[in-house]
Amino acid sequence: MKRILNLLAIILMTTSVMMAQDKKSFTLEDLMPGGNNYFNLQPKNIQGLRWWGDLCLQGEIDELQTINPANGKKNTLITLKEVNDALATKNLGKIHHFYSVSMPYAEKWLLLNTRNHRILLDVDKKEVIWNQPIPTKAANQDWNKESRALAYTIGNNLYVTTADGKETQVTNEADGILCGQSVHRDEFGIHKGTFWSPKGNMLAFYRMDQSMVTDYPQVNTSTRIATLEPDKYPMAGMTSHKVTIGVFNPSTQQTIYLKAGDPTDRYFTNVSWSPDGQSIYVIELNRDQNHAQLMRYNATTGEQEAMLYEEKHPKYVEPQNPIIFLPWDETKFIYQSQRDGYNHLYLFDLANGLMHPIETEGPNILHIPQQQITKGEWIVKSVVGFNEKAKEVIIMSTEISPLQSNAFAVNLKTGKTRLIGAAEGTHRVQLSESGRYIIDNYTAHNVARRIGIIPTSGKGKTISLLDAEHPMKAYNMPEITLGTIKAADGKTDLYYRLVKPVDFDANKKYPAIIYVYGGPHAQNITDTYNYGVRGWDLYMAQKGYVMLTVDNRGSSNRGLEFENVTHRQLGVEEMKDQMKGVELLKSLNYVDANRIGVHGWSFGGFMTTNLMLTYNDTFKVGVAGGPVIDWKMYEVMYGERYMDTPQDNPEGYKNSDLTQRAGDLKGKLQIIIGANDPVCVPQHSIAFLRACIDAGTHPDYFIYPGDGHNMAGRDRIHLHERITQYFEDYLK
Amino acid sequence: MKRILNLLAIILMTTSVMMAQDKKSFTLEDLMPGGNNYFNLQPKNIQGLRWWGDLCLQGEIDELQTINPANGKKNTLITLKEVNDALATKNLGKIHHFYSVSMPYAEKWLLLNTRNHRILLDVDKKEVIWNQPIPTKAANQDWNKESRALAYTIGNNLYVTTADGKETQVTNEADGILCGQSVHRDEFGIHKGTFWSPKGNMLAFYRMDQSMVTDYPQVNTSTRIATLEPDKYPMAGMTSHKVTIGVFNPSTQQTIYLKAGDPTDRYFTNVSWSPDGQSIYVIELNRDQNHAQLMRYNATTGEQEAMLYEEKHPKYVEPQNPIIFLPWDETKFIYQSQRDGYNHLYLFDLANGLMHPIETEGPNILHIPQQQITKGEWIVKSVVGFNEKAKEVIIMSTEISPLQSNAFAVNLKTGKTRLIGAAEGTHRVQLSESGRYIIDNYTAHNVARRIGIIPTSGKGKTISLLDAEHPMKAYNMPEITLGTIKAADGKTDLYYRLVKPVDFDANKKYPAIIYVYGGPHAQNITDTYNYGVRGWDLYMAQKGYVMLTVDNRGSSNRGLEFENVTHRQLGVEEMKDQMKGVELLKSLNYVDANRIGVHGWSFGGFMTTNLMLTYNDTFKVGVAGGPVIDWKMYEVMYGERYMDTPQDNPEGYKNSDLTQRAGDLKGKLQIIIGANDPVCVPQHSIAFLRACIDAGTHPDYFIYPGDGHNMAGRDRIHLHERITQYFEDYLK
Repeated sequence: MKRILNLLAIILMTTSVMMAQDKKSFTLEDLMPGGNNYFNLQPKNIQGLRWWGDLCLQGEIDELQTINPANGKKNTLITLKEVNDALATKNLGKIHHFYSVSMPYAEKWLLLNTRNHRILLDVDKKEVIWNQPIPTKAANQDWNKESRALAYTIGNNLYVTTADGKETQVTNEADGILCGQSVHRDEFGIHKGTFWSPKGNMLAFYRMDQSMVTDYPQVNTSTRIATLEPDKYPMAGMTSHKVTIGVFNPSTQQTIYLKAGDPTDRYFTNVSWSPDGQSIYVIELNRDQNHAQLMRYNATTGEQEAMLYEEKHPKYVEPQNPIIFLPWDETKFIYQSQRDGYNHLYLFDLANGLMHPIETEGPNILHIPQQQITKGEWIVKSVVGFNEKAKEVIIMSTEISPLQSNAFAVNLKTGKTRLIGAAEGTHRVQLSESGRYIIDNYTAHNVARRIGIIPTSGKGKTISLLDAEHPMKAYNMPEITLGTIKAADGKTDLYYRLVKPVDFDANKKYPAIIYVYGGPHAQNITDTYNYGVRGWDLYMAQKGYVMLTVDNRGSSNRGLEFENVTHRQLGVEEMKDQMKGVELLKSLNYVDANRIGVHGWSFGGFMTTNLMLTYNDTFKVGVAGGPVIDWKMYEVMYGERYMDTPQDNPEGYKNSDLTQRAGDLKGKLQIIIGANDPVCVPQHSIAFLRACIDAGTHPDYFIYPGDGHNMAGRDRIHLHERITQYFEDYLK
Repeated sequence: MKRILNLLAIILMTTSVMMAQDKKSFTLEDLMPGGNNYFNLQPKNIQGLRWWGDLCLQGEIDELQTINPANGKKNTLITLKEVNDALATKNLGKIHHFYSVSMPYAEKWLLLNTRNHRILLDVDKKEVIWNQPIPTKAANQDWNKESRALAYTIGNNLYVTTADGKETQVTNEADGILCGQSVHRDEFGIHKGTFWSPKGNMLAFYRMDQSMVTDYPQVNTSTRIATLEPDKYPMAGMTSHKVTIGVFNPSTQQTIYLKAGDPTDRYFTNVSWSPDGQSIYVIELNRDQNHAQLMRYNATTGEQEAMLYEEKHPKYVEPQNPIIFLPWDETKFIYQSQRDGYNHLYLFDLANGLMHPIETEGPNILHIPQQQITKGEWIVKSVVGFNEKAKEVIIMSTEISPLQSNAFAVNLKTGKTRLIGAAEGTHRVQLSESGRYIIDNYTAHNVARRIGIIPTSGKGKTISLLDAEHPMKAYNMPEITLGTIKAADGKTDLYYRLVKPVDFDANKKYPAIIYVYGGPHAQNITDTYNYGVRGWDLYMAQKGYVMLTVDNRGSSNRGLEFENVTHRQLGVEEMKDQMKGVELLKSLNYVDANRIGVHGWSFGGFMTTNLMLTYNDTFKVGVAGGPVIDWKMYEVMYGERYMDTPQDNPEGYKNSDLTQRAGDLKGKLQIIIGANDPVCVPQHSIAFLRACIDAGTHPDYFIYPGDGHNMAGRDRIHLHERITQYFEDYLK
């Protein structure tokens, strides 16, 4: 009996061991976007959820369902067959699923696109009620639901097709001038180049003259003989492009330009319309980026009406959000500013403004009462919309934690905020038309994904649509922990994410790799699933590496001062903070302090290279992807915000020019770039190689021909095989 | 006593060991051109030796000496001070040594160049008798000693300055048209673009229109922002340039062009003048390069006079030498041809030619009696000149061995050859004006360098000027041996050079590296000092590698059939022969057959990459420099000779296109290129990387920014550090 029990124990032990062994190991195909099993290891999601007025819709392949936000009841609104039968009667092609159907008219028509047509379909009658051909080669399409007019670009020029089918070529410019496209290299929150007036009867658009900008000679090597593909690239301190704003009136066919004066060395950002469609607001910035002005122009004459607000800062101001008028009061708008150190909402009251004409040169000034709405050591991440009835603005903010993004209803009078949905995690929400409901989609470090419909009032029940299971539960997971360390300033808390090796043994000594980005506008550690751990971190943890990431000062979502400490000296404070991460690693007795590596891309490539040169006794191996090497070679808009111009800040540029210190390379450093990188042009890396050769040091190098600033698809798998092998060859 | 003897024995042993230890080890600074000790490890030489009529001159820094070729007696001809004093009187600048002074007029004047002047100096009177300003920016200078006229180019155009100082711009062409420069990418023995008539009163010149040729977009990354430096590069099968030949008459200031017909897809090579200056000879070749014609044109009218000789071959003909008239008989010239399988001399007799007018299209044919002068399974490497009195032509040939180059006097009547100088080694000679003496400079595998003056008659004594000591005698040398193996055809002997590791131990197992070139026009193994061993071979032998080089079929100096076996299938036979070298290595019990590497540059880079892919179980590590990857991307002249066009030989191009087999890469392969390589353009390597990425294989890559097809100076040191490290990392 005892023997049998012993045997049983052995069997049980074996089973238990087998269960651990049964856990799967990751491959890069599991963990990398582009991998053939990547999709299965992502938390489940629901595609095609959206609002149709206050009715929630769920687009599936075969049918479009409605979900009652009060009780969650589902009904089929229309089927794929019904839609395609209706389309067939007018020979308008087909749709293949409901994921990308949109419903801009509350409880009225569906808007859908087939290959060649934009179509409105009456859901009740199941009839096409209107359609518009989509011009071949039309890019940057911007359709207005009020007028049903379409703005688009072909080549470098702007076109408009009105609801009646009339096509107009709005601009007729030479090659070097772009119209209707995003300008200023997508900085300042800019991501498009056309702006319909509220009624869709007037179109403001960007015109960017870059004929005076030098070409960067990109080369396409995939043609029979390599061909030049020049790309206008204004480098820091060099001549930049000139942007103006046109206004096209489809009914008169006239175009006027805003009379903003000489556009040289100025930025025209955050274009928006007044609710009445009479005026256009622009936030204008000088090239130094330390002086922003909110300007108003007459949309019909282009005349400058007034300067409504201005903001200066000794380092920089960075307007990224257009003003938003209250839906119920056309005299009040919300302006977002970091002027108290954190991005917050300010309510401006136009009705009580006082115009001060200025006799000297410059715009008239309209002094407007301002009221700070939100306040605190946290930031408003975005304005989602309004609950008109409750007179609330719905925002996303970091009020609970800088790692999170939660929806809040803000009382515009009191500024009081009320959390909507779970207090944990990082949320993405869609607000229903009335503002009564959100579709809430979130993950948290221990929540794979939850989706639900939540009343913004805080009253009424949540309709749960998904509680996704942990997609990696079949895999042998490493331990992932979050913590804080003090920054190099001795006072600021920095977040870190530490991943221990799979099958961790506290008595072993492991090599460690720091994954770093470190630049502005990014945050690596968030309260998302597994704290946002990267797939490659898991892969390396499985191979026996300790993986650490620290969000240093200079990174985002921590307020202005946290970010702008790096001004005119990019890299310096950031590296000091990363060395605090190294101290943490060295304090862990399972980390082999002689085997510390570093990897990063873009700004993280700059950091990696810089760390390899500056702390060359600490870091043995580095892989720097698409690195900035010399900020002189980076573009004007982003580069000069943080570094000013090379003329103004020669010391800062020299100190951060890594070619100057190429001789300090001691460890193994591999530079990897997309051979056609238009963001951080190949000249950076090539100049660094030249400097290393001249200095007698030996970096390694690889390129991805045809790729840009990042690798996607299968190239991303190949890239991470390559990065992994480098650490395996030299750090393990 | 016994004890003391034992002690002595120990001391003696220690001493003996210490003596071996005392031998120095090589560094790359010792072995590489560009290294700071390279010069000291080269065999001593004598700079500035040349003929002045039949008097030998030795230019030193401070003085110019004469050496009597009969007895070796030296006299000072003139001192640096005397020359510079004479120049000072006319304000003509200075010379700093006599190394580059030339003496074109037998026992008459010196010709010398200062920074801005070309000067004739009377040695006896120590007076400047004539001078000519050297135009600023003048390139491709071609001065004629008879007329003292200078031809030169500025930009893409041709200029002439006559002895009287009159400057003429001969051509005035647009950018895409080059005049007075070498054409056809220096193939067919072409290395210049101007050809003075014997009296220097007429100038033939090349004009190359390459406006129809595609640009390869080379990029200069050393400017503030990278700049395009387009380079006309006709790729195999694509549109090529058009060459014509002009004749400028300085006295009439007129230019005519030879009436050669449509120049499309034709090569105009080996331009020369008739001794009377009335006619111009050109060897013309079709684009297929399988049909050469020797044509004569009237130099005044440009009319085609006759076709004197033609040669066809099913694979290719490759004329590389202009015809040479006998100095004593203007009716006879020497033509060099490989028509019997080896390059030999043929004497053509114009006096007994018969003109056959042709009624159909095409040139008149002049049938000329021809007599083969030299014959045998060896090749004439060059014609050095003539001994007019003895009616002999002096040549360099491989008559003794394909590894050697020796001077011979050839009796023009009998074809009998008489060796001049030592029977061993590889000689470079200068022939005195009368042809009675040579300055002979040679090395052999065990001869560092010997220089002497030797009578071409074979009678009279040799004046020894230098017997250089072995420059590496202080170093611990590896054993270097020469041998032959059978080629893959089972019959042809191939030469190999084997270098054993320094401090060789027959009981050890060493890794081995094959250094390969393997293409036409080159030979790696010669009877030169240490059999022409490369500095890097010595370095690697010192690090414990066995180094092997095999000159496979397809390489030079072994005759036409040996070379053209590779036609339309470059790489195939060459690799089979290299695998015979691998068999040799595997037969050596001190070679570790699991650690065989390969390295080569250019054609050798093609071979290296090809071997790594084709024999991927044999080669573990390869370093391919500036490799051809796909012959479609190589230039027309060289590429189509061996491969025909991609249109004519699609199978051959496909089979040798290494991108097609990128997935076969198993070992470690590093590709290294000059980032601005104008010979084997970067597209080759970049296309290969793309193919490897797509196939999921992992080559390594490095570039030398700003460098061309080869690295020079300090970059060459850096390069070899890099190549070495790669083998040390992965093969050792």
